[in-house]
Amino acid sequence: MASDKKIAQKPVRPKARLPRGFRDRFGPEIAAERRLIEIIRGVYESYGFEPLQTPTFEYTDALGKFLPDVDRPNEGVFSLKDDDEQWMSLRYDLTAPLARYVAENFQNLPKPFRRYQTGLVYRNEKPGPGRFREFTQFDADTVGSNSPAADAELLMMVCDALEALGLKRGEYIVKINSRGILDGVLDAVGLPVEERERRGIVMRAIDKLDRLGVSGVRALLGEGRKDESGDYTKGANLSEDAAAKILRFLEIGAVGDDFQTVLRDIVGDNAKAAAAVDQLASIVTLCRENGYSAEQIAPDTSIIRGLDYYTGPVFEAQLTFPVTNEQGETVVFGSVAGGGRYDDLVARFTGQQVPATGISIGVSRLLAALTARGLTADVAPLVIVLGMGDTVSSFRIAKELRAAGVRAEAYVGTKKIPDQLKYADKRGAALVVMEGDDERAAGNVTIKDLKLGAELAKQVESRAEYLGARNAQVTIARADLVSEVKKILEQN
Amino acid sequence: MASDKKIAQKPVRPKARLPRGFRDRFGPEIAAERRLIEIIRGVYESYGFEPLQTPTFEYTDALGKFLPDVDRPNEGVFSLKDDDEQWMSLRYDLTAPLARYVAENFQNLPKPFRRYQTGLVYRNEKPGPGRFREFTQFDADTVGSNSPAADAELLMMVCDALEALGLKRGEYIVKINSRGILDGVLDAVGLPVEERERRGIVMRAIDKLDRLGVSGVRALLGEGRKDESGDYTKGANLSEDAAAKILRFLEIGAVGDDFQTVLRDIVGDNAKAAAAVDQLASIVTLCRENGYSAEQIAPDTSIIRGLDYYTGPVFEAQLTFPVTNEQGETVVFGSVAGGGRYDDLVARFTGQQVPATGISIGVSRLLAALTARGLTADVAPLVIVLGMGDTVSSFRIAKELRAAGVRAEAYVGTKKIPDQLKYADKRGAALVVMEGDDERAAGNVTIKDLKLGAELAKQVESRAEYLGARNAQVTIARADLVSEVKKILEQN
Repeated sequence: MASDKKIAQKPVRPKARLPRGFRDRFGPEIAAERRLIEIIRGVYESYGFEPLQTPTFEYTDALGKFLPDVDRPNEGVFSLKDDDEQWMSLRYDLTAPLARYVAENFQNLPKPFRRYQTGLVYRNEKPGPGRFREFTQFDADTVGSNSPAADAELLMMVCDALEALGLKRGEYIVKINSRGILDGVLDAVGLPVEERERRGIVMRAIDKLDRLGVSGVRALLGEGRKDESGDYTKGANLSEDAAAKILRFLEIGAVGDDFQTVLRDIVGDNAKAAAAVDQLASIVTLCRENGYSAEQIAPDTSIIRGLDYYTGPVFEAQLTFPVTNEQGETVVFGSVAGGGRYDDLVARFTGQQVPATGISIGVSRLLAALTARGLTADVAPLVIVLGMGDTVSSFRIAKELRAAGVRAEAYVGTKKIPDQLKYADKRGAALVVMEGDDERAAGNVTIKDLKLGAELAKQVESRAEYLGARNAQVTIARADLVSEVKKILEQN
Repeated sequence: MASDKKIAQKPVRPKARLPRGFRDRFGPEIAAERRLIEIIRGVYESYGFEPLQTPTFEYTDALGKFLPDVDRPNEGVFSLKDDDEQWMSLRYDLTAPLARYVAENFQNLPKPFRRYQTGLVYRNEKPGPGRFREFTQFDADTVGSNSPAADAELLMMVCDALEALGLKRGEYIVKINSRGILDGVLDAVGLPVEERERRGIVMRAIDKLDRLGVSGVRALLGEGRKDESGDYTKGANLSEDAAAKILRFLEIGAVGDDFQTVLRDIVGDNAKAAAAVDQLASIVTLCRENGYSAEQIAPDTSIIRGLDYYTGPVFEAQLTFPVTNEQGETVVFGSVAGGGRYDDLVARFTGQQVPATGISIGVSRLLAALTARGLTADVAPLVIVLGMGDTVSSFRIAKELRAAGVRAEAYVGTKKIPDQLKYADKRGAALVVMEGDDERAAGNVTIKDLKLGAELAKQVESRAEYLGARNAQVTIARADLVSEVKKILEQN
């Protein structure tokens, strides 16, 4: 009874935990993402793209349902009812909100309308390793132009952005294909454009070539496929012969700059597909003439992109350097951006077709790749002024250092010196500044070089002589503090 | 019948519109907000605060219910059920997620833990003019120190941030009060700390002094109040005498640096309140000794802050310069940041008290104030290269200009020159570059100065002579393009 009573009286405390598929991020990772975003922003703004920010919420009907890999209704997006009973959803990408924005403001926008937007998007999906339900995209789109120049510009701009981030020629490639050519192939195997649903299944299936391999895609083109977890995905019910033809088209892959001959041969006398080949040729030519080589931008029949709404050229930027995956295998990094032309998305609202093309960078994936390449942000070294009885003085020291451009923090906790030194270590501080009572009285101050101190402690024997030339701790005149700190930071 | 059939066949199109209380933002406003955030970030990082990013979603029980002005349950936050039937909510501020983060990672964090976070927060409230359901906050908090130095640092840091943004001494003031002193007053009128609910009503009531005036607050301290819309808010049921004592305390307002005498007199022999006065004195002294005057940071009994969770000092940064409000009246701008000490928020999870203090800047409000003051971002001038038949060449020109640091766009639409010039106007371009067939053949290119052109067109008579010294349009050698464009942009 006594113990029952105790349990009953215990206050109910929530458990401090995150919802599944979400994560916290801290310190250097945020700095690295900010660097990445600012560099891309700089390139996109230099091209004359203007920033747009749409809100997190959209009406569910305005967003539409264009997510790939979504077989059940309402799956894929986070939705809730507003208090006027209308369904709202959190945006799952930045393209659907752009279409809504353009439809809503069409009369007042300059045409073509060229905007970039970066922000979080949300997917209500089963989370997995490295697969989050909230992540950042960086999009650029040109709405209101059907010119191949609009597509070509995006491809070249993405190359510029990747190189501005520090990637070298040969470490990335922007691949381009056209849905129009694939349409020709599907027409040829007896799956005309009117069969929207089966075509959708085909698009999503062949977009999984990387992940499922030829046999997996063949199954999805045919009767369907059961995955390892036992989940069954409906197939497109194509004949074996038809599936083989599609796979053969995909397997051509990189077609080189003589792709017109190869592709015209495939699409035969299908006029729409032949026009798509010409369009592709115009885009590629414009890139070449502007100095972008086949090492940077190249046609490739295996690029499909899973989204339903693409109507013409489709793009995918891939990183080609090897990384080690979660299974310890060496693989190429793969896709970091994708996009294409979607001429019908604004027409969903207005009934009038508005040509549009765009490309979206997966910021988190690209950040992981840059981190693997060591291309991250430098964080300014931190100086911590310990608290030794005179807060006014330690605050003043920190303030002087900041005024001289040094990142400096006066310790605001209440622990004693050994704990403060541990704190400084944990914070990764470069230096600590100490001004005890005796030093203060003598007009002095002590600087301790934490990095050098750690080094000295580790290597007393082997490198003592060399390092001995520098002291891990120096006591100097208070008046020389700022110049001395700057000198030591420069040596580090 | 025929018309019925027509209606039935008409495709159902969603209407392009935003959910109530949300908005799109474009161009210069985004640039201005980015400038604001980067300047604050720079100041906070220079103090050694580190960035944290928590996700948009938290479990509803982890967030807790600390919103002011929320009388109905579930009001105030956007919530939805995850597919495992757990309720998740969108964060309504950045403090509750911080408490969850600290509780979850307590062992591994440096103590004190000093972080800043900026991001969107969400309120499921009735939208109104200038009142949005999604807005940006910028928070800094120190968790794990009960030292007045931690509070003082935040106040000084906010002063530094506001001045770094361009506000002058006297245009802002950071006011400070203490819940501990108010607790003493409430004890004295017979409302002890155990009466949590009635105390909450009192806090929220007196936080509305600005908005409702003395009579409105008096009603809320008494039986309650019906607002203009007929909504009734329950009062704290204090006696008239008790309400008058509280109002007298609030009305003291700015107490000046001799506040210790004034406040000790008010709190009498209430030991806890006397300790709160001492704490306040320590904070103010530290600020003064570090050179922050009463013009910047000042004690003021009218500052309460509506949130339930504050346990000690409370802060509010106000802008003191006049602006014109929606009713056309001249008013002072008012609050742009608020915060205080919340020593119990982490204990909600762990049962162990962790002292914490923080301040949150309302980015959108501050941005509106800076805009009113003309303190916004400069957007780099844009050059548009018109499309005159040779896209390769216009792209090359734009690329050359970008390489020279000029924001330059090659027109990618398909319209003729007059429409392209209208487009350039609409984009606010500074210059357009034109390379027609004849010019290309002659190795020339034409630059049109849109700003000067508009000026000349407007002022043909009065200023023709003066402006005539410059031409709105010049034809130059193609090789001189970059230097000529830079020269004209510098003149503008």
